[in-house]
Amino acid sequence: MKYELTTLDKNIIIGRIDKDQEIISVLKEIVKNQNIYGGFFKGIGAVKDVVLSYYDLSSKQYIDKEFKGEYEIVSLLGNISYIYATDEVVVHAHMAISDKDCIVYGGHLKKAIVSVTCELFILTVNDKLERIFNEEIGLYLLKP
Amino acid sequence: MKYELTTLDKNIIIGRIDKDQEIISVLKEIVKNQNIYGGFFKGIGAVKDVVLSYYDLSSKQYIDKEFKGEYEIVSLLGNISYIYATDEVVVHAHMAISDKDCIVYGGHLKKAIVSVTCELFILTVNDKLERIFNEEIGLYLLKP
Amino acid sequence: MKYELTTLDKNIIIGRIDKDQEIISVLKEIVKNQNIYGGFFKGIGAVKDVVLSYYDLSSKQYIDKEFKGEYEIVSLLGNISYIYATDEVVVHAHMAISDKDCIVYGGHLKKAIVSVTCELFILTVNDKLERIFNEEIGLYLLKP
Repeated sequence: MKYELTTLDKNIIIGRIDKDQEIISVLKEIVKNQNIYGGFFKGIGAVKDVVLSYYDLSSKQYIDKEFKGEYEIVSLLGNISYIYATDEVVVHAHMAISDKDCIVYGGHLKKAIVSVTCELFILTVNDKLERIFNEEIGLYLLKP
Repeated sequence: MKYELTTLDKNIIIGRIDKDQEIISVLKEIVKNQNIYGGFFKGIGAVKDVVLSYYDLSSKQYIDKEFKGEYEIVSLLGNISYIYATDEVVVHAHMAISDKDCIVYGGHLKKAIVSVTCELFILTVNDKLERIFNEEIGLYLLKP
Repeated sequence: MKYELTTLDKNIIIGRIDKDQEIISVLKEIVKNQNIYGGFFKGIGAVKDVVLSYYDLSSKQYIDKEFKGEYEIVSLLGNISYIYATDEVVVHAHMAISDKDCIVYGGHLKKAIVSVTCELFILTVNDKLERIFNEEIGLYLLKP
């Protein structure tokens, strides 16, 4: 299986993403299949082949860092929003991971493959949560 | 006191775990006393005598690491679920802790004694959130 | 702009704090303007000029550590509460930040200036969430 979900009352979705699935891709799939246009999520679990990133404001570019091997997900926090201009759903997530010595690395999440499991709690909002491009910052910022 | 709780509408429990109490044990006690069978929680605070762990998938065993001394809880994220096969409530938590130089350690939480306080926010779900044993992974995985 | 909010049903506030604003100050302003007396929040984003802190229980004093330069907010977790004795709203937050090499620092949040953006999810509670001074600990502790 790729993932399994249950939708509870009060806009709550509980989910599990399975081994060998990439978290951001699966989250985008969930968002599309469940017709979600806004929400917040958190999660724990374990991952491998992670790409964390740092946004360099002076160059307006992300600097990626690859992490091979397996890591615990110490924290996964993110939100779901929508860009009208490009008709695109955005899954914005930051993650902290820890290695077998409990050393922690973190940043903006570009990619993470599930190694063991990923347990998710998603709270959806009824309205579209929008993003608008900001010239000074060089990114689409949340416009709540 | 060991802990103090208040239950608000919408399945929300706010709690404080007191000095010298072990967080996972107290959470299990809360879960039992409040008849909770599923939920998600987060928290901040400060702890001492922490055991964080890393699940080694190849050996299917947890590798524990002990942290003596006092630490801030940078993040505590977890969920509450239920194993029908063993009639057992599971409190699954991951934690990041920081020392006096703000260096962060993290992993699967085995044990943490409250040193100052632990402030909790628990969102319970009405249905039982189940775990089923997965042979390949060697763990009870969430079956939402 | 300093910040922008939207209030959704179910006591949910979604917000964005803008570049060059200090997070704790703006959160206190939001709390005052929105008449919030209790709640929990989480966030991600990026910050500069951060002061993280460690509470030294033996001396009952915070030890501050300054972080110059820009960092991702890996996790921001906190709560909003009220001290009757001093008629004061307390924003209690812990933060993990990561630098361009994805190294993570964390602790009790004293100060953080937004460098890129800060995306917030606030869940308010209808009752006042109170804090009472605890002599042994030397801090106002949550009394849920």
